[in-house]
Amino acid sequence: MIENISELKVMGDDRGKLSVIEGGIDVQFDIKRVFYIYDVNTSATRGAHAHYKTKQFLVPVSGRCKVTLDNGQEKHTFELNKPNICLFQDAMIWGTMHDFSDDCVLMILADDHYDDSDYIRNYNKFLEVAKNDS
Amino acid sequence: MIENISELKVMGDDRGKLSVIEGGIDVQFDIKRVFYIYDVNTSATRGAHAHYKTKQFLVPVSGRCKVTLDNGQEKHTFELNKPNICLFQDAMIWGTMHDFSDDCVLMILADDHYDDSDYIRNYNKFLEVAKNDS
Repeated sequence: MIENISELKVMGDDRGKLSVIEGGIDVQFDIKRVFYIYDVNTSATRGAHAHYKTKQFLVPVSGRCKVTLDNGQEKHTFELNKPNICLFQDAMIWGTMHDFSDDCVLMILADDHYDDSDYIRNYNKFLEVAKNDS
Repeated sequence: MIENISELKVMGDDRGKLSVIEGGIDVQFDIKRVFYIYDVNTSATRGAHAHYKTKQFLVPVSGRCKVTLDNGQEKHTFELNKPNICLFQDAMIWGTMHDFSDDCVLMILADDHYDDSDYIRNYNKFLEVAKNDS
Protein backbone atom coordinates (compact mmCIF):
# COMPACT_ATOMS: atom_id res chain seq x y z
CA MET A 1 0.00 0.00 0.00
CA ILE A 2 3.09 2.25 -0.10
CA GLU A 3 1.88 3.68 -3.41
CA ASN A 4 -0.91 5.37 -1.45
CA ILE A 5 1.55 8.08 -0.34
CA SER A 6 1.88 11.25 -2.44
CA GLU A 7 4.48 13.93 -1.96
CA LEU A 8 3.19 17.32 -3.04
CA LYS A 9 5.48 20.00 -4.40
CA VAL A 10 6.41 22.70 -1.85
CA MET A 11 6.53 26.22 -3.19
CA GLY A 12 8.59 28.13 -0.65
CA ASP A 13 10.08 31.58 -0.38
CA ASP A 14 10.80 34.08 2.41
CA ARG A 15 7.05 34.46 3.07
CA GLY A 16 6.53 30.77 3.89
CA LYS A 17 5.41 27.64 2.07
CA LEU A 18 2.49 26.70 -0.14
CA SER A 19 1.29 23.38 -1.58
CA VAL A 20 -1.49 22.85 -4.09
CA ILE A 21 -3.91 20.01 -4.81
CA GLU A 22 -5.64 20.33 -8.17
CA GLY A 23 -8.72 18.09 -8.30
CA GLY A 24 -8.29 15.32 -10.90
CA ILE A 25 -4.56 16.07 -11.19
CA ASP A 26 -2.74 15.93 -7.83
CA VAL A 27 -5.53 13.80 -6.40
CA GLN A 28 -7.21 11.08 -8.49
CA PHE A 29 -10.72 12.52 -8.24
CA ASP A 30 -12.84 15.66 -8.45
CA ILE A 31 -13.10 17.24 -4.99
CA LYS A 32 -16.71 17.34 -3.82
CA ARG A 33 -16.15 17.79 -0.09
CA VAL A 34 -13.38 18.99 2.24
CA PHE A 35 -13.36 18.40 5.96
CA TYR A 36 -10.76 18.92 8.64
CA ILE A 37 -10.09 17.56 12.09
CA TYR A 38 -8.67 19.99 14.67
CA ASP A 39 -8.34 20.63 18.42
CA VAL A 40 -7.67 16.92 18.63
CA ASN A 41 -7.47 14.80 21.74
CA THR A 42 -3.97 13.35 21.24
CA SER A 43 -4.96 9.98 22.73
CA ALA A 44 -8.06 9.61 20.58
CA THR A 45 -8.54 7.22 17.71
CA ARG A 46 -10.67 8.53 14.84
CA GLY A 47 -12.02 7.08 11.66
CA ALA A 48 -12.54 3.36 12.30
CA HIS A 49 -14.85 2.94 9.34
CA ALA A 50 -14.74 2.20 5.64
CA HIS A 51 -16.79 3.55 2.73
CA TYR A 52 -18.51 1.49 0.07
CA LYS A 53 -17.72 4.08 -2.62
CA THR A 54 -16.12 7.25 -1.26
CA LYS A 55 -12.41 7.82 -1.94
CA GLN A 56 -10.43 10.15 0.31
CA PHE A 57 -7.13 12.02 0.31
CA LEU A 58 -5.62 12.83 3.73
CA VAL A 59 -3.34 15.84 4.22
CA PRO A 60 -1.68 16.65 7.59
CA VAL A 61 -1.67 20.43 7.05
CA SER A 62 -0.40 20.97 10.61
CA GLY A 63 1.39 18.63 13.03
CA ARG A 64 1.40 14.88 12.51
CA CYS A 65 -0.58 11.70 13.03
CA LYS A 66 -0.56 8.06 12.00
CA VAL A 67 -3.11 6.39 9.77
CA THR A 68 -3.65 2.65 9.54
CA LEU A 69 -5.21 1.36 6.32
CA ASP A 70 -6.63 -2.14 6.21
CA ASN A 71 -8.02 -3.88 3.11
CA GLY A 72 -9.35 -6.83 5.13
CA GLN A 73 -6.26 -8.90 4.38
CA GLU A 74 -3.36 -6.65 5.26
CA LYS A 75 -2.79 -3.53 7.34
CA HIS A 76 -0.24 -0.81 6.88
CA THR A 77 0.45 2.15 9.19
CA PHE A 78 1.59 5.41 7.62
CA GLU A 79 3.19 8.31 9.45
CA LEU A 80 1.87 11.60 8.13
CA ASN A 81 4.46 14.01 9.48
CA LYS A 82 4.95 16.73 6.89
CA PRO A 83 2.31 19.05 5.43
CA ASN A 84 3.08 17.87 1.88
CA ILE A 85 3.01 14.11 2.57
CA CYS A 86 -0.50 12.91 1.77
CA LEU A 87 -2.30 9.58 1.81
CA PHE A 88 -4.92 8.18 -0.57
CA GLN A 89 -7.60 6.02 1.06
CA ASP A 90 -9.60 4.11 -1.51
CA ALA A 91 -13.17 2.90 -1.14
CA MET A 92 -13.50 -0.39 0.79
CA ILE A 93 -10.44 0.33 2.94
CA TRP A 94 -10.87 0.45 6.71
CA GLY A 95 -9.04 3.53 7.98
CA THR A 96 -8.04 4.54 11.50
CA MET A 97 -6.27 7.74 12.53
CA HIS A 98 -4.25 7.78 15.75
CA ASP A 99 -1.19 9.19 17.54
CA PHE A 100 -2.14 12.78 16.83
CA SER A 101 0.28 15.52 17.83
CA ASP A 102 -1.17 18.41 19.89
CA ASP A 103 -1.08 20.73 16.89
CA CYS A 104 -2.40 18.22 14.34
CA VAL A 105 -4.88 19.44 11.76
CA LEU A 106 -5.80 16.70 9.31
CA MET A 107 -7.53 17.85 6.13
CA ILE A 108 -9.46 15.26 4.14
CA LEU A 109 -10.67 15.65 0.56
CA ALA A 110 -13.49 13.37 -0.59
CA ASP A 111 -14.81 12.50 -4.03
CA ASP A 112 -18.45 12.65 -2.96
CA HIS A 113 -20.89 14.51 -0.77
CA TYR A 114 -21.75 13.15 2.67
CA ASP A 115 -24.01 10.10 2.55
CA ASP A 116 -24.53 8.20 5.76
CA SER A 117 -25.47 5.01 3.86
CA ASP A 118 -21.97 4.91 2.34
CA TYR A 119 -20.36 4.20 5.76
CA ILE A 120 -19.45 0.77 7.09
CA ARG A 121 -18.91 1.25 10.83
CA ASN A 122 -18.82 -2.39 11.92
CA TYR A 123 -15.50 -4.15 11.31
CA ASN A 124 -17.00 -7.63 10.92
CA LYS A 125 -19.47 -6.27 8.38
CA PHE A 126 -16.52 -4.65 6.55
CA LEU A 127 -14.63 -7.98 6.44
CA GLU A 128 -17.70 -9.72 5.08
CA VAL A 129 -18.27 -7.13 2.32
CA ALA A 130 -14.53 -7.05 1.48
CA LYS A 131 -14.50 -10.85 1.18
CA ASN A 132 -17.52 -10.87 -1.14
CA ASP A 133 -15.92 -8.11 -3.26
CA SER A 134 -12.67 -9.96 -3.84
CA MET B 1 -18.44 43.12 2.82
CA ILE B 2 -19.38 41.56 6.19
CA GLU B 3 -21.57 39.03 4.37
CA ASN B 4 -18.33 37.47 3.06
CA ILE B 5 -17.82 35.74 6.43
CA SER B 6 -19.22 32.20 6.90
CA GLU B 7 -19.34 30.34 10.18
CA LEU B 8 -19.12 26.60 9.66
CA LYS B 9 -20.75 24.13 12.00
CA VAL B 10 -18.34 22.54 14.50
CA MET B 11 -18.91 18.87 15.17
CA GLY B 12 -17.11 18.22 18.44
CA ASP B 13 -16.84 15.35 20.88
CA ASP B 14 -14.18 13.97 23.23
CA ARG B 15 -11.98 13.09 20.24
CA GLY B 16 -11.74 16.68 18.98
CA LYS B 17 -13.49 18.87 16.43
CA LEU B 18 -14.43 18.54 12.79
CA SER B 19 -15.85 20.99 10.24
CA VAL B 20 -17.05 20.22 6.73
CA ILE B 21 -17.23 22.19 3.50
CA GLU B 22 -19.45 20.57 0.88
CA GLY B 23 -18.73 22.04 -2.57
CA GLY B 24 -21.76 23.95 -3.90
CA ILE B 25 -23.41 23.89 -0.45
CA ASP B 26 -21.20 25.36 2.30
CA VAL B 27 -19.20 27.22 -0.31
CA GLN B 28 -20.89 28.83 -3.32
CA PHE B 29 -18.94 26.89 -5.94
CA ASP B 30 -17.63 23.48 -6.99
CA ILE B 31 -14.14 22.96 -5.55
CA LYS B 32 -11.57 22.52 -8.32
CA ARG B 33 -8.41 23.29 -6.37
CA VAL B 34 -7.25 23.38 -2.77
CA PHE B 35 -4.05 25.03 -1.62
CA TYR B 36 -2.64 25.84 1.78
CA ILE B 37 -0.11 28.25 3.19
CA TYR B 38 2.07 27.02 6.07
CA ASP B 39 5.39 27.58 7.87
CA VAL B 40 4.57 31.25 7.44
CA ASN B 41 6.85 34.18 8.11
CA THR B 42 4.66 36.07 10.60
CA SER B 43 5.78 39.46 9.26
CA ALA B 44 5.06 38.58 5.63
CA THR B 45 2.24 39.89 3.49
CA ARG B 46 0.83 37.40 1.00
CA GLY B 47 -1.73 37.55 -1.76
CA ALA B 48 -1.67 41.12 -3.06
CA HIS B 49 -3.43 40.21 -6.27
CA ALA B 50 -6.91 39.84 -7.71
CA HIS B 51 -8.39 37.33 -10.14
CA TYR B 52 -10.44 38.14 -13.21
CA LYS B 53 -12.66 35.09 -12.70
CA THR B 54 -11.51 32.82 -9.85
CA LYS B 55 -13.52 32.81 -6.63
CA GLN B 56 -11.89 31.67 -3.39
CA PHE B 57 -12.89 30.55 0.09
CA LEU B 58 -10.32 31.08 2.87
CA VAL B 59 -10.24 28.85 5.94
CA PRO B 60 -7.77 29.41 8.83
CA VAL B 61 -7.52 25.72 9.76
CA SER B 62 -4.77 26.49 12.30
CA GLY B 63 -3.83 29.74 14.05
CA ARG B 64 -5.01 33.10 12.78
CA CYS B 65 -4.35 35.84 10.26
CA LYS B 66 -5.97 38.95 8.84
CA VAL B 67 -7.23 39.37 5.31
CA THR B 68 -7.93 42.70 3.66
CA LEU B 69 -10.39 42.66 0.75
CA ASP B 70 -10.59 45.66 -1.56
CA ASN B 71 -13.10 46.10 -4.39
CA GLY B 72 -11.34 49.18 -5.74
CA GLN B 73 -13.66 51.51 -3.86
CA GLU B 74 -13.64 50.23 -0.31
CA LYS B 75 -11.44 48.01 1.83
CA HIS B 76 -12.37 45.83 4.76
CA THR B 77 -10.03 43.86 7.03
CA PHE B 78 -11.27 40.57 8.45
CA GLU B 79 -9.74 38.71 11.37
CA LEU B 80 -9.73 34.97 10.71
CA ASN B 81 -9.13 33.64 14.19
CA LYS B 82 -11.14 30.40 14.51
CA PRO B 83 -10.89 27.29 12.32
CA ASN B 84 -14.59 27.52 11.43
CA ILE B 85 -14.67 31.24 10.52
CA CYS B 86 -14.17 31.44 6.75
CA LEU B 87 -14.03 34.21 4.19
CA PHE B 88 -15.33 34.32 0.62
CA GLN B 89 -13.19 36.31 -1.83
CA ASP B 90 -15.02 36.95 -5.06
CA ALA B 91 -13.46 37.50 -8.47
CA MET B 92 -12.24 41.07 -9.04
CA ILE B 93 -11.45 41.61 -5.36
CA TRP B 94 -7.89 42.55 -4.38
CA GLY B 95 -6.91 40.37 -1.42
CA THR B 96 -4.01 40.67 0.99
CA MET B 97 -3.21 38.31 3.87
CA HIS B 98 -1.17 39.62 6.79
CA ASP B 99 -0.56 39.41 10.58
CA PHE B 100 -0.11 35.65 10.52
CA SER B 101 0.31 33.84 13.83
CA ASP B 102 3.29 31.48 14.13
CA ASP B 103 1.04 28.44 13.82
CA CYS B 104 -1.16 29.78 11.01
CA VAL B 105 -2.19 27.41 8.25
CA LEU B 106 -4.52 29.07 5.78
CA MET B 107 -6.41 26.74 3.46
CA ILE B 108 -7.89 28.19 0.29
CA LEU B 109 -10.50 26.53 -1.91
CA ALA B 110 -10.81 27.79 -5.48
CA ASP B 111 -13.50 27.35 -8.12
CA ASP B 112 -11.01 26.82 -10.94
CA HIS B 113 -7.69 25.25 -11.79
CA TYR B 114 -4.55 27.37 -11.77
CA ASP B 115 -4.32 29.74 -14.71
CA ASP B 116 -1.60 32.36 -14.62
CA SER B 117 -3.52 34.60 -17.05
CA ASP B 118 -6.35 34.93 -14.48
CA TYR B 119 -4.10 36.90 -12.07
CA ILE B 120 -3.94 40.69 -11.81
CA ARG B 121 -0.77 41.43 -9.86
CA ASN B 122 -0.51 45.18 -10.47
CA TYR B 123 -2.77 47.28 -8.24
CA ASN B 124 -3.16 50.13 -10.73
CA LYS B 125 -4.13 47.66 -13.42
CA PHE B 126 -6.69 46.17 -10.97
CA LEU B 127 -8.20 49.62 -10.30
CA GLU B 128 -8.45 50.26 -14.04
CA VAL B 129 -10.19 46.91 -14.73
CA ALA B 130 -12.48 47.32 -11.68
CA LYS B 131 -13.49 50.80 -12.87
CA ASN B 132 -14.33 49.56 -16.36
CA ASP B 133 -16.33 46.66 -14.85
CA SER B 134 -18.55 48.85 -12.69
